Amino acid sequence: MTTTRRYTLTTSCPDRSGIIAAVSGFIAQRKGWIVEASYHTDLETQRFFMRQEILADSLPFDLTGFHAQFSGLADEFDMDWRISDSARKKHIVILVSKQDHCLNDLLHRWRSGELQVDIPCVISNHEDLRGFVEWHGIPFHYIAMPNNNEQAKAAAFEKIARLFEQHQGDTLVLARFMQIMPPYLCQRYLGRIINIHHSFLPSFVGAKPYHQAYQRGVKLIGATCHYVTEDLDAGPIIEQDTVRIDHGDSVDDMVRYGRDIEKTVLARGLRYHVEDRVLVCGNKTIVFR
Amino acid sequence: MTTTRRYTLTTSCPDRSGIIAAVSGFIAQRKGWIVEASYHTDLETQRFFMRQEILADSLPFDLTGFHAQFSGLADEFDMDWRISDSARKKHIVILVSKQDHCLNDLLHRWRSGELQVDIPCVISNHEDLRGFVEWHGIPFHYIAMPNNNEQAKAAAFEKIARLFEQHQGDTLVLARFMQIMPPYLCQRYLGRIINIHHSFLPSFVGAKPYHQAYQRGVKLIGATCHYVTEDLDAGPIIEQDTVRIDHGDSVDDMVRYGRDIEKTVLARGLRYHVEDRVLVCGNKTIVFR
Amino acid sequence: MTTTRRYTLTTSCPDRSGIIAAVSGFIAQRKGWIVEASYHTDLETQRFFMRQEILADSLPFDLTGFHAQFSGLADEFDMDWRISDSARKKHIVILVSKQDHCLNDLLHRWRSGELQVDIPCVISNHEDLRGFVEWHGIPFHYIAMPNNNEQAKAAAFEKIARLFEQHQGDTLVLARFMQIMPPYLCQRYLGRIINIHHSFLPSFVGAKPYHQAYQRGVKLIGATCHYVTEDLDAGPIIEQDTVRIDHGDSVDDMVRYGRDIEKTVLARGLRYHVEDRVLVCGNKTIVFR
Amino acid sequence: MTTTRRYTLTTSCPDRSGIIAAVSGFIAQRKGWIVEASYHTDLETQRFFMRQEILADSLPFDLTGFHAQFSGLADEFDMDWRISDSARKKHIVILVSKQDHCLNDLLHRWRSGELQVDIPCVISNHEDLRGFVEWHGIPFHYIAMPNNNEQAKAAAFEKIARLFEQHQGDTLVLARFMQIMPPYLCQRYLGRIINIHHSFLPSFVGAKPYHQAYQRGVKLIGATCHYVTEDLDAGPIIEQDTVRIDHGDSVDDMVRYGRDIEKTVLARGLRYHVEDRVLVCGNKTIVFR
Repeated sequence: MTTTRRYTLTTSCPDRSGIIAAVSGFIAQRKGWIVEASYHTDLETQRFFMRQEILADSLPFDLTGFHAQFSGLADEFDMDWRISDSARKKHIVILVSKQDHCLNDLLHRWRSGELQVDIPCVISNHEDLRGFVEWHGIPFHYIAMPNNNEQAKAAAFEKIARLFEQHQGDTLVLARFMQIMPPYLCQRYLGRIINIHHSFLPSFVGAKPYHQAYQRGVKLIGATCHYVTEDLDAGPIIEQDTVRIDHGDSVDDMVRYGRDIEKTVLARGLRYHVEDRVLVCGNKTIVFR
Repeated sequence: MTTTRRYTLTTSCPDRSGIIAAVSGFIAQRKGWIVEASYHTDLETQRFFMRQEILADSLPFDLTGFHAQFSGLADEFDMDWRISDSARKKHIVILVSKQDHCLNDLLHRWRSGELQVDIPCVISNHEDLRGFVEWHGIPFHYIAMPNNNEQAKAAAFEKIARLFEQHQGDTLVLARFMQIMPPYLCQRYLGRIINIHHSFLPSFVGAKPYHQAYQRGVKLIGATCHYVTEDLDAGPIIEQDTVRIDHGDSVDDMVRYGRDIEKTVLARGLRYHVEDRVLVCGNKTIVFR
Repeated sequence: MTTTRRYTLTTSCPDRSGIIAAVSGFIAQRKGWIVEASYHTDLETQRFFMRQEILADSLPFDLTGFHAQFSGLADEFDMDWRISDSARKKHIVILVSKQDHCLNDLLHRWRSGELQVDIPCVISNHEDLRGFVEWHGIPFHYIAMPNNNEQAKAAAFEKIARLFEQHQGDTLVLARFMQIMPPYLCQRYLGRIINIHHSFLPSFVGAKPYHQAYQRGVKLIGATCHYVTEDLDAGPIIEQDTVRIDHGDSVDDMVRYGRDIEKTVLARGLRYHVEDRVLVCGNKTIVFR
Repeated sequence: MTTTRRYTLTTSCPDRSGIIAAVSGFIAQRKGWIVEASYHTDLETQRFFMRQEILADSLPFDLTGFHAQFSGLADEFDMDWRISDSARKKHIVILVSKQDHCLNDLLHRWRSGELQVDIPCVISNHEDLRGFVEWHGIPFHYIAMPNNNEQAKAAAFEKIARLFEQHQGDTLVLARFMQIMPPYLCQRYLGRIINIHHSFLPSFVGAKPYHQAYQRGVKLIGATCHYVTEDLDAGPIIEQDTVRIDHGDSVDDMVRYGRDIEKTVLARGLRYHVEDRVLVCGNKTIVFR
């Protein structure tokens, strides 16, 4: 719901004293106005993580100027850092299959202005959702994913990657896409592919998690939003939630309950991501809410 | 919080039409007053489960009379059944190690009258909690569990079993006991040993689940109350819950949050069990709350 | 997600012994197959409530036959009762204003088959949502609600009532309609108008509940689905939920979080209602989930 | 669970740019190591709030030295500020009546080392809990509170205040004390008296909130931990939570469920308070968790 233009600076570096003072001093000297600031030290790696939102108009330069002036300080502290501008909306490409509850939810948040992104296109291996997507004025691309033809499948993923590049995609969202991304794409877009898995990971990895949950007799089911890596359903977790079920609930009931948390968890995780609130530390995430 | 004496009848049998009519008809003909009634059909096994609470004084006979008159009907429907009397409190033997948050919680519920059971004794492999237990007027038995001596450990479990039998124990509660029950006891007391595991099973089976959760970077942690079987942490689940954590929480913080759900989940699961609300169906439970 | 046709029988009557036996006996004698059964006694009014789902094909007659044969028994126990047929979908007329998160959610559940109802039309006092509604093939009626013209407003409500009657509406859903129903309509459609209020009632009745919540500094906000009565936001509550906020959340953030629980709570409450799971007892509801 | 000694600095002042830079610069210049830092701007009052934990040994002076050197900076920014030392545990005086679930919970957290405070005494208007308190080695004071004798009651509160002063009490905890504090004590100890109210405020202020909740037919009940002010149950809220109930739950069941959230909410709220995580802003709190 940001209305005034902001720069968001995220950094990480080896922990030591004086980091906050140096960075906030740098900003203060240039009359920059910090409106949100978050810090975290990871105890295992002794690494320091920081996120700051600065009013864009309070600084006497643009992002190029920021880069020029900040790099010296960043080098001194051995920082990984990036800065983003709220005036440049991120480009989100959504992949879907037939199930549309997550897509319906994301598109509503987008058209109501809650999710501040550009959606240059939606890609699917089924034609079913074309009408709904196009009603929003968003291009819909159908790309076949023949199940028993590895070569055709590889070509399909090539097409997806090409579309993503053409649209200068920032993030690829697997909104119940039901297809496993090839390892080379997981590597190429590390930290840029977000998946919603319909279980409380690490429980029930892989296919049919609600059936697995039903068999195990759990009393809560869950959903997990995570970055996609080469290891199936094992990437850094961004957000999770659970909902209570009981013995009276069939697999179909669990699927129904699950849809409600899947869409909420994906929407929250994606929002954190596009607002640069998620920093990755090994296989874990720091989420500055 | 039951004040009036009740019989609780729990039955299961192959599903067919007319079961409710037959059982409720049997009770109605004898002027029995049903105050709570729950039903469930398991779709996989096509088995029907039922629980009924009947005001004891509304029936013209006691439990012996009930057995005599009900068995014909039970045989006709091929029922597994049992009936319990709220006037005879169940005997709960509690096993603990050094951590006492679950014990503290259960003993408070017991002394405030919320948990309507008899606790004939508490058994521990450490002396630490003797004073607290004995303050309640409950006998405390110390039984050493030497870690590297399998024979002594086996003898220790024999002693535990003997104490449990001597006190006509109904249920053995592992309130963070931190020891693995030998298979022969799991079999002998099937459906009568309740454990609290400090994770959201099936995630993080075995030792140090909070460390496992920390490593995996989950955003919620949980606790699971389940019946103990020979398969470690794999028995029928009675109750579970989760609590939100974030990147700022250390393993110690997770342990602290975890204690609060462990004690609540164990207390709920144990209450369901002692009120005969839990029926086991394969490796799952039906919990008539 | 019901696939086989079912009759749902709901009854209430003064409590006494033998009710379950009589009703389940009646059904069993006619070879009826009960697939779900729930009971409740309200202790204050000593009234007994019951809900049973019966496989339609297991009974030797249709609803007319059921009425003919069951009325004798119903009279004997002085029952209020009704029976519904899953083959006849309920007619839901939805009223909206400009905010469309609840509408978007309900229409998605409807078009995915999760919400098994007919939606003969959507009515609004704004034109904004016409396109979205008509894309679903559902008629959209714009009815002006001039704010300072009581006479015009009364006429508008007359039109709404007329449309509702013409479409043989069963239930009127106020999906963030933001207008107060006139008392005579609240009375005429008692138990048939469902509202979603954006607070955890009874806190923050009336206008701008998120502003009220912000001023009071609560740490959770909520939503309430309830039947509409003449007393503003005081009718029987069907469903509620809450979500955690903190000091960092502005009113806008609360509005955003709130939308997610509003739509979920309304969807759950409406599902309970259309599946005849809600029985009203005084100003309270019994919800047989 | 803090093991290393820390200073906790909390400040508030009119918002302007450069505050973080000035304070973190002050600390960095003295080689202070900040291990936790939180910031918040209240939009209504345009006031800035800050909390920083600094490793005590990293600074070249003690609290007296800190005061001497920091006051100039504090004056410059017109700060309200205080600094506390984890080596000096806060003194918590607990007031109870007969219900002991909160007391039992707090004393367990205290004796297990989770709650890092000193408890110089427990005061009650009933003798019931003397044995339990004294088993912990904590002095127990019985002070009669005759219900219909205002003068005797006033004298009783005088005694409570005297005991609190004698023990250099920092915080007075009303752990289900069931008595209304006189206004002059609310004023004298503003921000230092913590109450647990057994409802989700602002719903169900005053006596018998579970009965009120039962009458209203809510689907969730709650508990609220708040600072005590002259207005009954209307002080700044520190922490709240809710739990689901349903039509089957009697007032007694609600009381039982309620106890579990009351004790958890009070324990969380009190921990935030003693760790200086709660800053009051008007009638609201900022809780830096």
